[in-house]
Amino acid sequence: MTSSIASFRFTEAFSLAAPIAQAPMAYAAGGALAAACARAGALGLVGGGYGELPWLQREYALALSAGPRERIGCGFITWKLDEDASALDWVLQHRPAAVMLSFGDPRPYARRIADAGAALICQVQRMEQIPHAIEAGAAVVVAQGGEAGGHGMDTLNGRAVISFVPEAADWLAAHSPSTLLLAAGGIADGRGLAAALILGADGVLVGSRLWATQECLASDAAKRHALAQDGDATARSAVFDILRRKDWPTTYNFRALRNAMHREWEGQTDALRAAPDEARALFEQAAAQGDFTRANVTVGEAVGLIRDLPPAGEVIARMAREAQAALG
Amino acid sequence: MTSSIASFRFTEAFSLAAPIAQAPMAYAAGGALAAACARAGALGLVGGGYGELPWLQREYALALSAGPRERIGCGFITWKLDEDASALDWVLQHRPAAVMLSFGDPRPYARRIADAGAALICQVQRMEQIPHAIEAGAAVVVAQGGEAGGHGMDTLNGRAVISFVPEAADWLAAHSPSTLLLAAGGIADGRGLAAALILGADGVLVGSRLWATQECLASDAAKRHALAQDGDATARSAVFDILRRKDWPTTYNFRALRNAMHREWEGQTDALRAAPDEARALFEQAAAQGDFTRANVTVGEAVGLIRDLPPAGEVIARMAREAQAALG
Repeated sequence: MTSSIASFRFTEAFSLAAPIAQAPMAYAAGGALAAACARAGALGLVGGGYGELPWLQREYALALSAGPRERIGCGFITWKLDEDASALDWVLQHRPAAVMLSFGDPRPYARRIADAGAALICQVQRMEQIPHAIEAGAAVVVAQGGEAGGHGMDTLNGRAVISFVPEAADWLAAHSPSTLLLAAGGIADGRGLAAALILGADGVLVGSRLWATQECLASDAAKRHALAQDGDATARSAVFDILRRKDWPTTYNFRALRNAMHREWEGQTDALRAAPDEARALFEQAAAQGDFTRANVTVGEAVGLIRDLPPAGEVIARMAREAQAALG
Repeated sequence: MTSSIASFRFTEAFSLAAPIAQAPMAYAAGGALAAACARAGALGLVGGGYGELPWLQREYALALSAGPRERIGCGFITWKLDEDASALDWVLQHRPAAVMLSFGDPRPYARRIADAGAALICQVQRMEQIPHAIEAGAAVVVAQGGEAGGHGMDTLNGRAVISFVPEAADWLAAHSPSTLLLAAGGIADGRGLAAALILGADGVLVGSRLWATQECLASDAAKRHALAQDGDATARSAVFDILRRKDWPTTYNFRALRNAMHREWEGQTDALRAAPDEARALFEQAAAQGDFTRANVTVGEAVGLIRDLPPAGEVIARMAREAQAALG
């Protein structure tokens, strides 16, 4: 255990002030959020998400215009790249500090990312995926637990941070000691950051806590709605993926606030998949109207630790300060 | 953050050498395990489980004969007490240091436990259960995450330690600051213990790591089988409860090694519940024969951190030493 939060391997590798990466949340993590995190000394990752090129071009340019290039990168959903990798190819022309791949096999994309000089960050949800990440040349492995908001491994297959992170740390120490490890899921304050470091991580990937900031692209109404919830209020299922017409592989599903729409369908996702039209119409109307009894509000269990909507830079500074104090 | 592992509130309250309680695992945590943990300076809890009185009488007497009374108590499944509380009443005649209640409303049992001079420990799985524990006069609340082995909240409702513990700590600090908090689930070494303390717990409740010890009543073959698994190898469902004829409330289910029997039925528990006879016969035969492709081996995600089968006292000493080193 080193005594300064800034001396961890992850901070040194990416010239960071704190061992924090901002999760590349699809639709929420635009250029303003990535830039704000990068300015505050974290790694900012634009949410390349479903690979929609015009969105990414706009937001990535915004990030570069407002934040330091050496701490800005981009994240993608790997199985979507298998359909169309043009957004990845576009980003690689702009010298990203890092490319993060989640939810699929990273190996087909390893070479072009390395050739572009970007660090590869691979998010995994199970031990068995780590060797693939190493084979792909990952500089950083993110061990994501099922407590995370948004996409993650389904509940039969998923892991939880408290045991997954030390197990992954042990595996990397034995098999690939130069690979860095981040913990993801349920971490929203300096206690979570300090705990992750003690568990053997080199840093953390933060989603929900940075979603609930001024720079995040989610609506103010959604953010304020989330602030009122405790951590019991989320659940993981395929419901919102089906409603949003996202054809995710069935081993992955989605954590969000467990609203009335979720409760109605969480026990019968096969039926919803088979006949989604009526529910989709209700969902789409609700999304347009900001009716969060039906529309998804995408946060993880850490929502119960979130009490305000500060600028993202304040979150980074606060987490680093609290973790430093906790580690003594 | 205090500098000595022995100075935490939980160790002081129960005259412990380390802030560790041994989980009262039904069928596994008999008198020998509870006594060994108590001798090593942890809180030893006999697994009163389903309230089978002759088993409890034998094992509790064994615990008292081999370990210090002031660090020995007993745990019960609360909804089973609602059917028959004679085992609780018997234990309360023997001055237990603590009684732990899990999986149900503790309030009907609070008065008689207090009158017997035993500390009440209430295990909870969601924030919404904490006020009931406080109302029952709990001296200790255990925040159990779904990564734990054996029974816990089902996967739609359950929490994970990394966010549940700090959220529970904040709630208790605001509403009941003298109540102690333990973290349970996924904790098997000093890193997990230290992380739990940093997250705001006063200590930890340890199941799987103490299951994999010489004193645990599980078979050697089951323990050796578990040692060979990583943390990906478990899953949570109602399968083994149905097969074992345990009529659990549906909000609770069971994590164990995800063997062939589990995989066969995990996606169709309603069908198994409706027509269990054939599968039960196969299961019971496998259990009798020690065939772990069908019989349950009850461990949590922490199994991936377990590499040996030492005496329980060595586990306690090792965890305390490692946590002390991690906290600096």
